[in-house]
Amino acid sequence: MQRIALFLAPGNNQPRLGFVEADQLIDLGAAAGTNDLTALIGSGPDWNALAGKARASGARVPVASAKFLPPVPDPRKIICLGLNYADHAKEGGHARPEYPSIFLRVPTSLVGHGQGLVRPRVSDKLDYEAELVLVVSKRARHLTPANALDAVAGYSCFNDGSLRDYQRKTNQWTIGKNFDATGAFGPWFVPAADLPPGAVGLKIESRLNGEVMQSDNTSNMLFPVVETLCLVTEAITLEPGDLIVMGTPSGVGYARKPPVWMKAGDKIEIEIEGIGVLSNPVVDEE
Amino acid sequence: MQRIALFLAPGNNQPRLGFVEADQLIDLGAAAGTNDLTALIGSGPDWNALAGKARASGARVPVASAKFLPPVPDPRKIICLGLNYADHAKEGGHARPEYPSIFLRVPTSLVGHGQGLVRPRVSDKLDYEAELVLVVSKRARHLTPANALDAVAGYSCFNDGSLRDYQRKTNQWTIGKNFDATGAFGPWFVPAADLPPGAVGLKIESRLNGEVMQSDNTSNMLFPVVETLCLVTEAITLEPGDLIVMGTPSGVGYARKPPVWMKAGDKIEIEIEGIGVLSNPVVDEE
Repeated sequence: MQRIALFLAPGNNQPRLGFVEADQLIDLGAAAGTNDLTALIGSGPDWNALAGKARASGARVPVASAKFLPPVPDPRKIICLGLNYADHAKEGGHARPEYPSIFLRVPTSLVGHGQGLVRPRVSDKLDYEAELVLVVSKRARHLTPANALDAVAGYSCFNDGSLRDYQRKTNQWTIGKNFDATGAFGPWFVPAADLPPGAVGLKIESRLNGEVMQSDNTSNMLFPVVETLCLVTEAITLEPGDLIVMGTPSGVGYARKPPVWMKAGDKIEIEIEGIGVLSNPVVDEE
Repeated sequence: MQRIALFLAPGNNQPRLGFVEADQLIDLGAAAGTNDLTALIGSGPDWNALAGKARASGARVPVASAKFLPPVPDPRKIICLGLNYADHAKEGGHARPEYPSIFLRVPTSLVGHGQGLVRPRVSDKLDYEAELVLVVSKRARHLTPANALDAVAGYSCFNDGSLRDYQRKTNQWTIGKNFDATGAFGPWFVPAADLPPGAVGLKIESRLNGEVMQSDNTSNMLFPVVETLCLVTEAITLEPGDLIVMGTPSGVGYARKPPVWMKAGDKIEIEIEGIGVLSNPVVDEE
C-alpha cells in the first residue's frame, strides 16, 4: 500500500511529492519526473514500482516534522455531495433524497494536513464534516457502472469545514462551504488499487479534541462512488485531478444539543480506515 | 475603448489574444508577450498602449471568420449570483433577498462566442440567462466599498445556460448550472476603464432567434458589483482571472407561459451596452 503526499522540502520550501514509509516521507519527485500529482496520475503510474525506484536515492524527511500541502493543491473541480448518509440527512430534518445534493468548492478553500483550519472573522459557526474524497484519473463523460471506477485514481480524507450561518443565509449552501482554508484534504493520497473497489466498507470517523463526534462506514452512503460518478458525468466532463467529496455521516456540530462549534485551539481529526488520519488545529483568521 | 478577445489562430489553431478594430481582430500576443489574459491582467497593462504597439505589426483576422474562445478559458473560480434582479426573483416566486444566492460553475461548462451551446442528451429544459460578468484583476480579501473596484480588471457578457429540471432536482442549483458547454462567455473582454465604474447603467438584453426575451439595465441589480465584491471577499480570496457572474433579469424561458426551451438550430444572443453581442447557436450533444 502506498501513501503519496505533497510536502514542502525543508531546505527550500518547494512542493515535493513523497511516499510514506514507517515514520518517514521519501522524496518521489526525482523518480517520478514531476512533483505534480495531477500530471503523475494522468500518466497512469505503477505506484509500487515508483516507490521502489525512489527508495534507493530519495531524500528523507520525518513525517512528524513535514509541512503537508493538499495532495492536489489546485484542482480544476471540487465537486461535493451533501446529505449522502441517511442518518445525517435525518439529523438536519431532510427527507431521504432521490438525487444527490451537489455543490462546489474553490481551491482557495483547501488546506493541508497539520495546517490551521481557519475560523473566519465574520462567523463563529464553524463545523466539521468527515468525508471520503476521490481523485479523478482521466477525462471522462457518461461513465457507466461497468467503467466508472476506471476514472478513479485514488482516495483521501476530507474535512468539509462549513460556516453554518453563511451556509443557510439562502437556500444555496455554497458561500458557507467556501471560506478560505476551511476544507482540509489529506494527509496523503492512497491509490485506488490499495483499497476496496469504490472504497466501500471503510470505517469513517471524526474526533474533536479526541472525542468521537462522527462514526460510520462508507458502505452507508446513499449514493456510493460508482453511482455518483455515473450521475455527475451525465452533466460534466471530469478531468485528471478533479475531486469528488462524498458527503458526511451524522454527528455534525450544528445538529447537536447544544450545538458544538470549533474554535481556536481545538484539534479536529478525520480518520478513514485504510487511508489515515487527517488532523488540523483550528486557528482564528489573522 | 478596447475589446480583447482570445481566438484560435487560423494557421495553427493556437490560442491568441487579439483586439478588435472595426471588422478585424489584430494579434496582440507578440506585443503583450503572452496569450494568457489572466497573466496579462496580473501585470496591470495599459490596454491602449498595448493595442497601439500591436497595431503596427500584428497579424489580422476578420472578426466574422474568427473562432472565439472564452476570454479566460480556465478560470480558477466562476462565482455566480442568482436572483440578483428584483423582477427575476419575483417571476420565480422568490422573495426579494437579503443576501445574494451564490453558486459556482466549473471551467468545463464554458463555451466561447459563436461556438455551439450544447443541449445535453439527458434534458430538454435548456434555458438562457443574460448576465454581466466581471474579471478579477488581483488577489483580494476583505474588500471595502472604497477599494472594491480596484479588484476589477474588466467586464464581458455571459449566458448562464441552465438545465431547469436538473437545477431543481434538489435545493442546490449547481448540477443544472454545470453541464458541459452551457455557459457562454464573451465575445471579448472590455477593460474596466472603458465602462462606467461598477458597469452601472448599461442596458442588458437577451434575444432568442431575434426576439427580445430579457431587457433590463445593470443599475437594477439588487447586489451591485461593489457590494457583491465586499460580500464575496468576506469569505473568499479572489485571484486574477476569477469571474463573478452577476445574475439575470426577468424574462427567462422557464417562467414564461408556456415555457420556452432552447433547441438545436436556435440562435441565442446576449447584448450589453458598451460591451457587445455574445451569440451562440444551440446544438444537440453529440
